[in-house]
Amino acid sequence: MRLLGIDPGLRFTGWGVLEAEGNRLRHVADGVIATESTDDVPSRLKMLDDALAEILARYAPAEAAVEETYVNRNATATLKLGYARGVALLAPARAGIPVFEYGAKTVKMAVVGTGAADKDQVGQMVRRLLPGAAQKRADAADALAVAICHAHHRASLNVWKRPA
Amino acid sequence: MRLLGIDPGLRFTGWGVLEAEGNRLRHVADGVIATESTDDVPSRLKMLDDALAEILARYAPAEAAVEETYVNRNATATLKLGYARGVALLAPARAGIPVFEYGAKTVKMAVVGTGAADKDQVGQMVRRLLPGAAQKRADAADALAVAICHAHHRASLNVWKRPA
Repeated sequence: MRLLGIDPGLRFTGWGVLEAEGNRLRHVADGVIATESTDDVPSRLKMLDDALAEILARYAPAEAAVEETYVNRNATATLKLGYARGVALLAPARAGIPVFEYGAKTVKMAVVGTGAADKDQVGQMVRRLLPGAAQKRADAADALAVAICHAHHRASLNVWKRPA
Repeated sequence: MRLLGIDPGLRFTGWGVLEAEGNRLRHVADGVIATESTDDVPSRLKMLDDALAEILARYAPAEAAVEETYVNRNATATLKLGYARGVALLAPARAGIPVFEYGAKTVKMAVVGTGAADKDQVGQMVRRLLPGAAQKRADAADALAVAICHAHHRASLNVWKRPA
């Protein structure tokens, strides 16, 4: 089963696709969608949406997982993050696949084993868990991390669903 | 020239279409797109996106204007407003029309003549400026108000563009 992870942001949106077979994970692809801060916001959101639609069409994931990041710096920054997250939640829904959301701590816990892990630790564990993946940009590694987190949660859901 | 105004929100998104000919404005249509808070967020964003796409296809506005509302209550509320605004900015961009943003004070100033006007005053002035419009829900009236605001700004832009 192919899973798409998305770590959304208006400037940089990380994405990563992996294949999960039981407990085994395989890296498929990842990348970063960048939009220019000099462009107007509607155009940037359209670029992000177009790129996500292309990724969804090319890799045909069965499910998507989006990282729930909160920025408390100020209302304007939070609102902008909201635009990008809105598009990141909408694009898979438009493609007709289920979308799941995971908080940053849940993702770190699933990947590193502690909710207090830093970016470097997440990146290192992503490369260890997905040996095919080369050195990644932090945003792409975070996107793969949320996909790994979703794969783990799916696996435990399946365990619960098994007849006793 | 047909103009679409949007007052976005995850629970209720107001929309309104008017026709502007020089200084004359004519009401075309308006309404409110509601999504259920019991549904998951990706489904709600898809409902909002589908409804806006249908409005854009049916009324074929030449330009869109979106109200810039800031909610400072808390980060979660601001983020949710961001989702809806992201979709409201994306939908016209996907339809290939220019999108403009106006702050709430600018809209009130354009419609009532003071940035400190309350919801009732905005609704009353919208009904006076667009005689065809019946008693409206506040969200739809706010959407028509941002369309009126954009019509005024367009008109003054055209004045400046005229040769001396």
